[in-house]
Amino acid sequence: MKVLVPKKSLADTLARVERIVPSRSSNPGLSLLRIDVTEDGMELSGSNMDVDIRARFAVDAPGRGSYAVVGHVFSQVVRALPGEDVQLDLGDDEMQISSGSYSTKLQLMSPSSAPVLNFGAQFGGSIDAAQLARALSAVKYAASVADFQAVFRGVKLELADGRMRAVATDGFRLAYYDLKESTGLLSEVIVPARSVDELLRVLSDGEVKLALEPAQLSVQHGNYSLNLKLMDGTFPDYERVIPKTFPVSITLEAGRLAEAVARVALMADKTTNNRVDLFVKGGELRITAEGSFGRSQEALPVLQEGTDPEIALAYNSKYLTDALSPADGEVRLSFSGSNSAPSVVTDLGDNSYLAMVVPLRTS
Amino acid sequence: MKVLVPKKSLADTLARVERIVPSRSSNPGLSLLRIDVTEDGMELSGSNMDVDIRARFAVDAPGRGSYAVVGHVFSQVVRALPGEDVQLDLGDDEMQISSGSYSTKLQLMSPSSAPVLNFGAQFGGSIDAAQLARALSAVKYAASVADFQAVFRGVKLELADGRMRAVATDGFRLAYYDLKESTGLLSEVIVPARSVDELLRVLSDGEVKLALEPAQLSVQHGNYSLNLKLMDGTFPDYERVIPKTFPVSITLEAGRLAEAVARVALMADKTTNNRVDLFVKGGELRITAEGSFGRSQEALPVLQEGTDPEIALAYNSKYLTDALSPADGEVRLSFSGSNSAPSVVTDLGDNSYLAMVVPLRTS
Repeated sequence: MKVLVPKKSLADTLARVERIVPSRSSNPGLSLLRIDVTEDGMELSGSNMDVDIRARFAVDAPGRGSYAVVGHVFSQVVRALPGEDVQLDLGDDEMQISSGSYSTKLQLMSPSSAPVLNFGAQFGGSIDAAQLARALSAVKYAASVADFQAVFRGVKLELADGRMRAVATDGFRLAYYDLKESTGLLSEVIVPARSVDELLRVLSDGEVKLALEPAQLSVQHGNYSLNLKLMDGTFPDYERVIPKTFPVSITLEAGRLAEAVARVALMADKTTNNRVDLFVKGGELRITAEGSFGRSQEALPVLQEGTDPEIALAYNSKYLTDALSPADGEVRLSFSGSNSAPSVVTDLGDNSYLAMVVPLRTS
Repeated sequence: MKVLVPKKSLADTLARVERIVPSRSSNPGLSLLRIDVTEDGMELSGSNMDVDIRARFAVDAPGRGSYAVVGHVFSQVVRALPGEDVQLDLGDDEMQISSGSYSTKLQLMSPSSAPVLNFGAQFGGSIDAAQLARALSAVKYAASVADFQAVFRGVKLELADGRMRAVATDGFRLAYYDLKESTGLLSEVIVPARSVDELLRVLSDGEVKLALEPAQLSVQHGNYSLNLKLMDGTFPDYERVIPKTFPVSITLEAGRLAEAVARVALMADKTTNNRVDLFVKGGELRITAEGSFGRSQEALPVLQEGTDPEIALAYNSKYLTDALSPADGEVRLSFSGSNSAPSVVTDLGDNSYLAMVVPLRTS
């Protein structure tokens, strides 16, 4: 069967799908990309066990058929094609890919060798893609990358009536982002942070359809369908640990604070959690660090509320800069006093976002 | 002693010097950058044993002094500085670096802990920097990166009367580039290819001064002085193996050939040296490859000279694309006939360049 496709749409789609389909796997079936040609067009699908993806696009095809091909090889070939159009000639054992003066014959596998994927969800929910992307992007840094308690490597989605929250924590810091919208679903689920990254790559503008099924969240957006496997386990009762009142808080521009923290932290030793010390007194924030190469400091004027004795707290500098990264205007950094109780970052331009950072114990 | 420097000139200079001064070394002295302040300005110098570098720039300084500091830390700090100017306050044990609201104190070491470097060469030779850069850039790919015979990891410079040649080979391919200029030096030296990379990074416009000393080539260009340690050993007698007559040659656009070879080679197995086969007959070049995932081919019209029976030769595709990379217009690819004698690439727009590639043995 001969199928004619514009090179650009095939290459762009394969680039997204290829990220998920592993190029090496102990299970060789996982490296296969399934190709289904129907009267509606062409579908490419694959999985890495945590995320299933299917991309669909219109093609001129004279019939129906199902095939499987090694995903990363197909992608590489399509990326390198010289022409603007691609002709795929799908046979029993081989697919001939022709474009301009170039042609290649790739071995085809039986479609039954590829993972069996189910994209037949009934979508009972929906949300705006840009909003969902903003919420997930704002919090995913706070999930753990280490092989720690599993739920710390996930992003929790609280789907409630009239609101939705994305929240992540690794036990030392936390971030949440609230959307004041109903998705139409009522549930709480935990999605692995790595799957959130893959979802973010396909989100653009428009609507995202959502469906909750046992053990997976199904998402449809534009030409893409994804099944995200959910994590088991109980997410910590985080609300309880977020302080509500603060003796002292400071307001300043997020970027300026983040740059100063990063700069001062250059002198911090990695062995001491990249420790930086913050001192707040009389409308001035002083940031210091020291390590085996020397010591550094920077002082910034701030708008200070509260007049406690001088605040003196130590932080992992990376946790502070991460917490500031989703904000682009002024932020308020609120201290629970000079002890190791958590500090809180709020974005004055976007009150949907809150981050909490636990100071380092210094004594 | 207080020294005032524009941040940009200090940061740019450190970026170049930092590439050479190792950030980790079993010899801790090597990670030190020496700072000399004189009435002429400031000098930063360091070494990785193969390359010594010294950068000089004008500063406002009230006296003279010599210091040493851990190079990569100094660079990191300067890169992150917030202001446009930097004040360096050089004391006995510490250097305070201040810029805008930020300041840091870095430990200083005794300048005698840093490597002893000699930049006192008498420059008896010179050449245009852009020309030297063109020659070195065009040939360095052909040097070996593997732990093979040492001279194969070097670039040979033939400094003769009225001409200069840069040449590199790894035994399977070769490239040379001729300049029709006298450097004023008469010698043949071999410079490690990695040192050539460092030299290329400092070359811009203007004159390069050259000096040959026992076991090193000294170079001065703009604000930079480099000593490049030379390699011992005998460079192969390569002229002897470059064929002079060719039964068949083809002419086509270098970029088009390189792209086609790279595209076809996607199907080649790495275990067979990325083998691509070239067939030339009747004004057509056909390139084919096959491997475990499938097979590919591309046919290009060429201007053919010579009418031998069909040329059929196999190459490591990477050697072909490397050989084509310095050319940007039409190239001639000349074949010694259908056997494993070397093929030759010449750039029709720049007859200074010649590359030789040995075909793969296929039987």
